[in-house]
Amino acid sequence: MDVNQRMEHMGKQAQQAARQLRHLPREAKDRFLQHLAQRLEAETPAILAANARDTEAATHLDAAMRDRLQLTAERIQGIAADVRNVANLADPVGEVFDERTLPENLQIYRQRVPLGVVGVIYEARPNVTIDIAALCLKSGNASILRGGKETYYTNQALLKVLQQALQDSDLPTHAIQLIEDPDRQWVHALLRLDRYVDMIIPRGGAGLHRFCLENSTIPVITGGIGVCHLYVDQGADLTAAVPVIENAKIQRPTVCNALDTLLVHEAELEALCSLLAPVMAKANVALHADEKAYAHLQQLNYPHLQKAQAEDFGTEFLALILSIKTVPHLEAALDHIAAYSSGHSDGILTQNQAHARRFQQDVDSAAVYVNASTRFTDGAQFGLGAEVAVSTQKLHARGPMALEGLTTYKWLITGHNSIRP
Amino acid sequence: MDVNQRMEHMGKQAQQAARQLRHLPREAKDRFLQHLAQRLEAETPAILAANARDTEAATHLDAAMRDRLQLTAERIQGIAADVRNVANLADPVGEVFDERTLPENLQIYRQRVPLGVVGVIYEARPNVTIDIAALCLKSGNASILRGGKETYYTNQALLKVLQQALQDSDLPTHAIQLIEDPDRQWVHALLRLDRYVDMIIPRGGAGLHRFCLENSTIPVITGGIGVCHLYVDQGADLTAAVPVIENAKIQRPTVCNALDTLLVHEAELEALCSLLAPVMAKANVALHADEKAYAHLQQLNYPHLQKAQAEDFGTEFLALILSIKTVPHLEAALDHIAAYSSGHSDGILTQNQAHARRFQQDVDSAAVYVNASTRFTDGAQFGLGAEVAVSTQKLHARGPMALEGLTTYKWLITGHNSIRP
Repeated sequence: MDVNQRMEHMGKQAQQAARQLRHLPREAKDRFLQHLAQRLEAETPAILAANARDTEAATHLDAAMRDRLQLTAERIQGIAADVRNVANLADPVGEVFDERTLPENLQIYRQRVPLGVVGVIYEARPNVTIDIAALCLKSGNASILRGGKETYYTNQALLKVLQQALQDSDLPTHAIQLIEDPDRQWVHALLRLDRYVDMIIPRGGAGLHRFCLENSTIPVITGGIGVCHLYVDQGADLTAAVPVIENAKIQRPTVCNALDTLLVHEAELEALCSLLAPVMAKANVALHADEKAYAHLQQLNYPHLQKAQAEDFGTEFLALILSIKTVPHLEAALDHIAAYSSGHSDGILTQNQAHARRFQQDVDSAAVYVNASTRFTDGAQFGLGAEVAVSTQKLHARGPMALEGLTTYKWLITGHNSIRP
Repeated sequence: MDVNQRMEHMGKQAQQAARQLRHLPREAKDRFLQHLAQRLEAETPAILAANARDTEAATHLDAAMRDRLQLTAERIQGIAADVRNVANLADPVGEVFDERTLPENLQIYRQRVPLGVVGVIYEARPNVTIDIAALCLKSGNASILRGGKETYYTNQALLKVLQQALQDSDLPTHAIQLIEDPDRQWVHALLRLDRYVDMIIPRGGAGLHRFCLENSTIPVITGGIGVCHLYVDQGADLTAAVPVIENAKIQRPTVCNALDTLLVHEAELEALCSLLAPVMAKANVALHADEKAYAHLQQLNYPHLQKAQAEDFGTEFLALILSIKTVPHLEAALDHIAAYSSGHSDGILTQNQAHARRFQQDVDSAAVYVNASTRFTDGAQFGLGAEVAVSTQKLHARGPMALEGLTTYKWLITGHNSIRP
């Protein structure tokens, strides 16, 4: 069998498993998850040994990547705790909504059901393997996982634990499958398996998302790319604004909900620069400022200062860099966001209610904030209990996507030997 | 400018128009639609003259296609009535749901908003031009339409009416754009316009849907392909079953919710054949029957009888053809449907409640029926007031999709200068 045939075989087996999974009551799924958590803890030595082989081979990776790749007993405990957390989440499957009686005395309602088979393509994060497998199983879906080649041995060890836990729980072992071969042609084949796979979730950088979009015949949940803006409005409470900007930029600069561009009303520019500069300087944030902001910051002797170039706007920095643009009014801020935002998270800092409303109505992003940090865009922070992805496309799920995003619905209609007139 | 640049320009203009449309109150949208209906009626002579040029050139089309293409004063009246119907539908935009207070005293809710820009690719049906433009506008979306080359002149005349109505209503004329050039490279360019277009809706045959899936980097609502099944269960009320089967097969055999395959429990086969044969014979339905059914139907001297071949199962006939398969029990019927259904509409005819439940839970189709004709799968029949498409994919919208399917939501969060802990 060639790659396409083998991938098709995996797809078929996943679909068969999915047909069993969709009938599982919540209890059976939670029992599996509790058992999986326990097995992960019990198999810690084997998982760590496999992980050591990966980390030893990862000499070409930078420190941050190596750190992501590395497992410890504590991190495995954390992964097991996450699995128990998923077991405790409500099960979205089975929810009935939109119940009505149609003419001809037809009873109709919609019922929430699993999607079927979910394909997940991710990079060197071994925690994703367990996390996504648990979320898919909890929502009644089969999953086909494709991890990075850097986690080859770790993923094999994790798959073994997953498979054993499925067997112990009398669940179909094809409910969770892993593409082990690192050759990229497997990803190509997976992306064209629309007969068997219902959704593709890429978890990684912009390149991976683009690759999936370009090559997939299966719906792709794109996202995770955040070019995030905060606009400091005329009359904003500047003393209160600074900690929000600090939180948005500094707390975790490498993630998608971190701030990239600060838009400032010209009337507030000088005062804001004075308040913000010491905070940003202390955290070694490089400021790429437009001409007006540059002039003020230069006067303040800001240590990491550059004149903003065209590419400083609309860029996700994923680093301690902040671009600053001065605007004459709210509408100019809205125009800038319309042109440069990636549709992830944008906010306004204002004391003007009408401006807050106008901003929330006009900005077409997944999460639109008033007087809050963009860092809140997250499944757990939004109270969803989990996060499968942060979608920046608009279909199906937008923003933080959790268990409900892994479901669809079907229409169930009951008649009395009814015919359409 | 080459095709890609010109298409990108259209996309940009559509996105700018969409930014205005999303602020429109319901009244403004309905006023436009009422005016459009009136303009269509007033411009009937011009539209009919353009349509005559198309129908005269359509000598290569078959009678059914030519009929679809043909407009009359009455049909234009019907199109105008449909537009008025859309004006009377509730506006889904603005709906607030999932309102909560998060820790840190953050107020959060989701608000239903337009998708933005919708691309629609369809064939020789001039009514779609007005229908889809009206539905997109009503839901606050800009649209880019691409009709079949057979309707070239008609669509130009309709576009003129649309543009005039937009101007008269002080709405941006780029809210509704038409790709006029029949060259297919325009469709290619449209399908890759993911920076500006949020959703692609193909309206046409399986080939068009496949073409969009293969070539689009924009989410595609695939659907419209119905390989539909009815299963006659052991103990079913056969006298009541026959009119349901008749309705599903005969009422309109060329549409996607028409019946393709009848599954019959072996205990009911002989009696059902006797009742069904005269009804099917009268309507000239060709029966492609498996061996057991063939034997019974041959004894009855059924006039249009063939032995079923492998390709008779899993085929959307779109014609007066029905394949028949005998099954030993419910599970075999479910296995057949799992293997051959296109996920559109399938049903069971039964008096056994447990079987009805098992069928509705196991069959993974957009619409799953008990004791009713598959012909009900339709936006109007389901009480949605309209139909943009019948989706057989599972993301975003499943089954009949109406105005709500043309919307998404955003998360609106209001804090008190809140930072993530």
